[in-house]
Amino acid sequence: MKVVFIGAGNLATRLSQEMRRVGFTIKQVYSHTQASAELLARTLGCAWTIRPDEVPDDADLYVFSLKDAVLSEVISHIRPNKGVWVHTAGSIPMDIFAGHAERYGVIYPLQTFSKKRPVDFSVIPFFLEANTPETAKVLQKVAVSVSGNVRFLSSEKRKQLHLAAVFACNFTNHIYALAVKLVAEQEIPADVLLPLIDETAAKIHNMSPAEAQTGPAIRYDENVINKHLTMLSDPDMKSIYQLLSQSIHKEASHE
Amino acid sequence: MKVVFIGAGNLATRLSQEMRRVGFTIKQVYSHTQASAELLARTLGCAWTIRPDEVPDDADLYVFSLKDAVLSEVISHIRPNKGVWVHTAGSIPMDIFAGHAERYGVIYPLQTFSKKRPVDFSVIPFFLEANTPETAKVLQKVAVSVSGNVRFLSSEKRKQLHLAAVFACNFTNHIYALAVKLVAEQEIPADVLLPLIDETAAKIHNMSPAEAQTGPAIRYDENVINKHLTMLSDPDMKSIYQLLSQSIHKEASHE
Repeated sequence: MKVVFIGAGNLATRLSQEMRRVGFTIKQVYSHTQASAELLARTLGCAWTIRPDEVPDDADLYVFSLKDAVLSEVISHIRPNKGVWVHTAGSIPMDIFAGHAERYGVIYPLQTFSKKRPVDFSVIPFFLEANTPETAKVLQKVAVSVSGNVRFLSSEKRKQLHLAAVFACNFTNHIYALAVKLVAEQEIPADVLLPLIDETAAKIHNMSPAEAQTGPAIRYDENVINKHLTMLSDPDMKSIYQLLSQSIHKEASHE
Repeated sequence: MKVVFIGAGNLATRLSQEMRRVGFTIKQVYSHTQASAELLARTLGCAWTIRPDEVPDDADLYVFSLKDAVLSEVISHIRPNKGVWVHTAGSIPMDIFAGHAERYGVIYPLQTFSKKRPVDFSVIPFFLEANTPETAKVLQKVAVSVSGNVRFLSSEKRKQLHLAAVFACNFTNHIYALAVKLVAEQEIPADVLLPLIDETAAKIHNMSPAEAQTGPAIRYDENVINKHLTMLSDPDMKSIYQLLSQSIHKEASHE
């Protein structure tokens, strides 16, 4: 199966390398940014281009892995062909391809990717969507070749899943950043937080986050909460503390 | 070394069991709640009591692991003795023992504990404080017997560290709870989030959270942010989304 990657960012880099590893032929990489296109193509041993009209029309699969804002424009510059076109975006409906391709869909891996950091694809949940049953079969075949956790999901539900992922990943990471900032202010090395952060994540493999919740907010320990609020000089951190403590308390009261 | 545990909660349970495992003699467990005292004492093979005046005065170490609100009162009911008295609380100054014991201090393990869930003590950062250099030596000896990550820290800095831990653990866990709620509303099994949650935690072993930050807020993708805000019906979740996105954007602009 011959594949073209449209995009050379974090997700495109990791997914193309994994697909190559399991036996796909990556034919070409397109990126608006020459350095990114060249770099990824070199690791894949394939051709590259910065011109969408140079994307070949004889591949079997076109993986569009681009920023949401430019996806629609790049799609319109790729020559129509008989291949299956997919994007990898949580928030974009499948129908962005309607009128541009005959066979199209979505391959959405629920994970955070960095160019530099390898990840174990076999456990990543893949969410697929396809415009026809025949296309569905193609995408299923592609996804199961890299992951053991594959299912189909509509555009509407994928959008909601992406929102959940913003909480689980982006907001969690920012909370880590705030915690690191607080220990750095005390000249304590940030890595003292790692065992706690790891255990907090590991715990919810065995119990629900609601069961795992500990700390002053769940006990509604106003004494500690108020002391903490006076210790936070940054008004945004104070608001975040207040809002999350309220929310923890509210969830607990509903149970 | 003979040890009495005052308290039989999550931390007391895990720490007493670990100390027993590495060779300490746990003499007695005190808890206000008979069932908790009895249960922990049974796993340790030691005596238990629900009366503070029955706590023996010939132990070498008294570990007070109680809710902040009751610590002071329970301390005042224990008969004065020659042992070293320590508590395990992040937010309480060491001086809570002044006037009650001659040798005292703090052993603060930075971790989240559950009665049911074993944890690897060897990697848990322990933060110690002692009222005399001789007491410091005793606490150092106790802590290094269970952990390879031991240092001294003042009450003032420990309080700040505890605040950072509320972010890193309690708030992170609540963000998990909100993400799980969002996927549950779509009838998607919550465990699809686990590889993402694990990778988000694993990533910051190799890069700072600031470097690891991804998602619509760091790109300030107002299109996606506004779509997400309209998708959140719960006003608290909407506020949390807005505040954390603003905070991510603000931190990024400062760099």
